Amino acid sequence: MELPKLLLMSRALEKMVRPPESEFELVRLDATRDRDGFLAANGGGIEMVLTSGTERLDAARLALLPDLKLIAAVAAGTSEIDLDVAAARGIAVTNAGDLNSADVADFAITLMFAHVRDVIGHDRYVREDRWPTARMAPGRSIAAQRVGIVGLGHIGHAIATRLAPFGAEIAWWGPRAKPDIAWPRIESLNELAEWSTVLIVAARGDDSSRGLISVDVIKALGPDGLIVNVSRGFVVDEAAMIAALKDGSLGGAALDVFEHEPIKGSDWADVPNVLMAPHVAGATQESFSAVFAGALDNLRRYVAGKPLLRRVV
Amino acid sequence: MELPKLLLMSRALEKMVRPPESEFELVRLDATRDRDGFLAANGGGIEMVLTSGTERLDAARLALLPDLKLIAAVAAGTSEIDLDVAAARGIAVTNAGDLNSADVADFAITLMFAHVRDVIGHDRYVREDRWPTARMAPGRSIAAQRVGIVGLGHIGHAIATRLAPFGAEIAWWGPRAKPDIAWPRIESLNELAEWSTVLIVAARGDDSSRGLISVDVIKALGPDGLIVNVSRGFVVDEAAMIAALKDGSLGGAALDVFEHEPIKGSDWADVPNVLMAPHVAGATQESFSAVFAGALDNLRRYVAGKPLLRRVV
Repeated sequence: MELPKLLLMSRALEKMVRPPESEFELVRLDATRDRDGFLAANGGGIEMVLTSGTERLDAARLALLPDLKLIAAVAAGTSEIDLDVAAARGIAVTNAGDLNSADVADFAITLMFAHVRDVIGHDRYVREDRWPTARMAPGRSIAAQRVGIVGLGHIGHAIATRLAPFGAEIAWWGPRAKPDIAWPRIESLNELAEWSTVLIVAARGDDSSRGLISVDVIKALGPDGLIVNVSRGFVVDEAAMIAALKDGSLGGAALDVFEHEPIKGSDWADVPNVLMAPHVAGATQESFSAVFAGALDNLRRYVAGKPLLRRVV
Repeated sequence: MELPKLLLMSRALEKMVRPPESEFELVRLDATRDRDGFLAANGGGIEMVLTSGTERLDAARLALLPDLKLIAAVAAGTSEIDLDVAAARGIAVTNAGDLNSADVADFAITLMFAHVRDVIGHDRYVREDRWPTARMAPGRSIAAQRVGIVGLGHIGHAIATRLAPFGAEIAWWGPRAKPDIAWPRIESLNELAEWSTVLIVAARGDDSSRGLISVDVIKALGPDGLIVNVSRGFVVDEAAMIAALKDGSLGGAALDVFEHEPIKGSDWADVPNVLMAPHVAGATQESFSAVFAGALDNLRRYVAGKPLLRRVV
């Protein structure tokens, strides 16, 4: 019996998802350096692609995969995949859906609290032996914050639900009004930023949200405002944010994502009031297990002719 | 008209609480070095004491204040005050009550999340330019934690309420069972520690809780366990905890309080997996305002013959 051909966009994916060779004929892309050349020679017959979501799957590359029927991504982000081409050719695209959105929401709140209550500053103050002689000015209460959530999808909703018992005021903005939401939607993103002391960016990262947190939004948030970003780096105008942090027109930033990852953190050494993490909001053992199992499940569903889960296209 | 005499145990208290000289005759203790000598000469007629809660008010010192009727503390802790003597002499003692318990609960959760999701480690990893070349192993999900809360007073209850939507399992232990509590009480502290991955110490810090988190409790929590302490340093056997962190029989600690404060943090440089803060869980601008206003309110209530609020004795 001939096994269905599955293209692995990176070696790491094989270790993570572990598609059994008894069920799939594995085609390993990173065994070769000229990837497009490899695909031009071997792309025929490949029905499925497994991707981390960060490998390029644009129109030119998809053209090298004429028999493709399914792209399974082990992440929420699909910005590297040409979804229009996929839709036009009837290629299904699945992603992590909301399998890791609880962890992402947890981490957004972790970043917010760590920044507002200055976990790093206090730890350093103790370690540098300043406690016996110097005083730190008291910080602000979580309950005194007005938290604006940008994007009330799975993640934004999970953030609001988790924040509710802390007593901070919560509002949100997204491109579309939603029914049955407990928290008020502010009419415009600028007004939300004006009102907020903390702006948590949880919008879907795609072309429609590129640069959404513009220089005007950053200005509206202001010198006492904090940006928390767990979406995608390009959703924030990063150059404008850095300039605003440097000149004090923005109060602080707690960032899990950056415009060009991985960053060299030392490039940010002169940016004040910034807390950084290496895109790990959804990266827990539990989420990884769930996302990898979900991707393998979709590969098997395709082979068995069953409906796919977490479809994007 | 003669004004009632109010003793200020430190100069800082005057700035914080601002008792008006039009209402009180202020007696400033720290204007002199020999405090007990000063009180022996000037203690008569003093009806009220304002204390931060960290100044000694033991039997010997209280004996120098024969006319004392009220001790108003601007903190939750009253371990430096001899409450038995106060009770026997009919001296009322008031404290911060639960005016800052929300902030303390917030900070307990902040410390827990920052440790579990490794905020400091990730920030350092980015800043030290390790992201482009090295991988960090994924951490654990908040939802996968079993959180044991030691002491379900105002603070412990506020912690449980706030944690609930994160999906972590919650249980607690305290010396007395309580009605109408949503979370299960485990019969013994050792069993709670055995069950928990995170043990949050929110017990009242007094003689009854000294050394409560013993070497046995620390062992029961184990190599994957995390201690979060927002109570008082002496509630944990600190030497045992440090030894357990060093030999790996305890997984981690996130500490706002220490046995002898202020500590020299450099003494802890070789203690692994510890996150430290300088006793700031309840120290926000909002809590300070509320606590200082509450103390002044009680001083005025005493003068006006009205019932006192937040009485300990």
